Amino acid sequence: MAERDRRHFLKTVGGVTLGMTAVSGLVGLNGFSQTKAESVAFPWPYKKVDPIAAAERAYQAYYQGGCMYGAFEGIVGELREAVGAPYSSFPTAMMKYGAAGVSGWGTLCGALNGAAAAIFLVHEGKTGNPIINELYAWHGAEALPNYKPRTPKFDKIVASVADSQLCHISVTRWCEKSGFKSGSKERAERCAWVTASVVKYTAELLNNQAAGRFTVAHPVPVAVKECLSCHGKDGSVANVHAAAHSSCTNCHTDVLKNHPVPLKK
Amino acid sequence: MAERDRRHFLKTVGGVTLGMTAVSGLVGLNGFSQTKAESVAFPWPYKKVDPIAAAERAYQAYYQGGCMYGAFEGIVGELREAVGAPYSSFPTAMMKYGAAGVSGWGTLCGALNGAAAAIFLVHEGKTGNPIINELYAWHGAEALPNYKPRTPKFDKIVASVADSQLCHISVTRWCEKSGFKSGSKERAERCAWVTASVVKYTAELLNNQAAGRFTVAHPVPVAVKECLSCHGKDGSVANVHAAAHSSCTNCHTDVLKNHPVPLKK
Repeated sequence: MAERDRRHFLKTVGGVTLGMTAVSGLVGLNGFSQTKAESVAFPWPYKKVDPIAAAERAYQAYYQGGCMYGAFEGIVGELREAVGAPYSSFPTAMMKYGAAGVSGWGTLCGALNGAAAAIFLVHEGKTGNPIINELYAWHGAEALPNYKPRTPKFDKIVASVADSQLCHISVTRWCEKSGFKSGSKERAERCAWVTASVVKYTAELLNNQAAGRFTVAHPVPVAVKECLSCHGKDGSVANVHAAAHSSCTNCHTDVLKNHPVPLKK
Repeated sequence: MAERDRRHFLKTVGGVTLGMTAVSGLVGLNGFSQTKAESVAFPWPYKKVDPIAAAERAYQAYYQGGCMYGAFEGIVGELREAVGAPYSSFPTAMMKYGAAGVSGWGTLCGALNGAAAAIFLVHEGKTGNPIINELYAWHGAEALPNYKPRTPKFDKIVASVADSQLCHISVTRWCEKSGFKSGSKERAERCAWVTASVVKYTAELLNNQAAGRFTVAHPVPVAVKECLSCHGKDGSVANVHAAAHSSCTNCHTDVLKNHPVPLKK
């Protein structure tokens, strides 16, 4: 090994060691770090992220690996540049699984899935769940996308209200409003802008939380609370395992006129 | 530093180096590894996982951090023990975000979210997406849970068919069949068994793929294919951004009798 390479190697070892000793507890018989989940230093250190830089990074990353990867990489890529280890060792490419509601299944919006994963990399439940709650309620209520990237593929993309956190519903609402098909390049661009929009708001929420000024701007809708007063956790018909939602009548389209027992009002 | 500690330290450095040099590309000015996402060695090496051991680990992990954490830790915990680095540096606790369809929002089943994340840690899309497709279709079609942990909290848990990949629908179907409330300890135990069941099947699929004998046992239902023939990507009314699903009429309960244009059959 040449002297320069050896120094490089040792610097790498030193750098990695600095990052890894914080998360390593035990050394196994094979000499590898046998860290148990419980001993990992968690959550990882947060440093204020520029919402615009994160949104632009998310937009670019969307076209490399889809919505979930785009959202996760938007936040974590900024932290990797600003903080280095341990972010530099995270295999962000794994987050490509969440594209189009996970491998095209149309379930959870991948931008929301990736943003929530990034939030829980720097927060435990006590502080992380309120951020996710605000982000998810905002996604259901706002006309999105509400962020236009600096070098877009299309100059104008119509905004629509999803009333949901699901990929299928969000995209269908947009297709109906815009007139574009779900397989169109315009729809892909729309989802890239939505990913950037979600990342911008996530960064703002994370920064606000770090600065001690996090607030809830999008509470659970009153209509949903009314449904959950019977169907939620402590209700008389507790058969819905959800503490929050944007809309129940999105799917239960006939529930108001065909409710099996009289509604409270 | 005592000689024994120093040897220990060097072994750790050596172990981590073996794992990290494969994923490190650049060394930043601060001496930390400034790996770019693109330069991370990905996917991570897979070693056959015992489906029963993974299921048991998932069951225990469910009660530590919920369904998504349980599923992810079930697979990745086994790989951490068998392989060591780079798994030993993964902050698995972040996966707690997916509990109850992400922070209680009832969207994507956390066990399915965690399993998909684990699958994409060891597979790229070309081989990973077919595994997710089979797992998700299986989850929608099978009566679950179908795995009983060795030391359960309850002796018997009723199985039910979710017909969906969503937490809310899956839990509601089970509440209606079992008669238990969504906030009950029996429901939590049911979800712990479902997490173990999902992990057992995921491990079997990963092992089959590694052995070159992966097969699709649960294709997209014919009824869903019929809906997507018009509403899917290349259809005349391409407004549904989903390539697969267990059921359209789960939510669209009135679509067959009130379809706006005559159905093909």
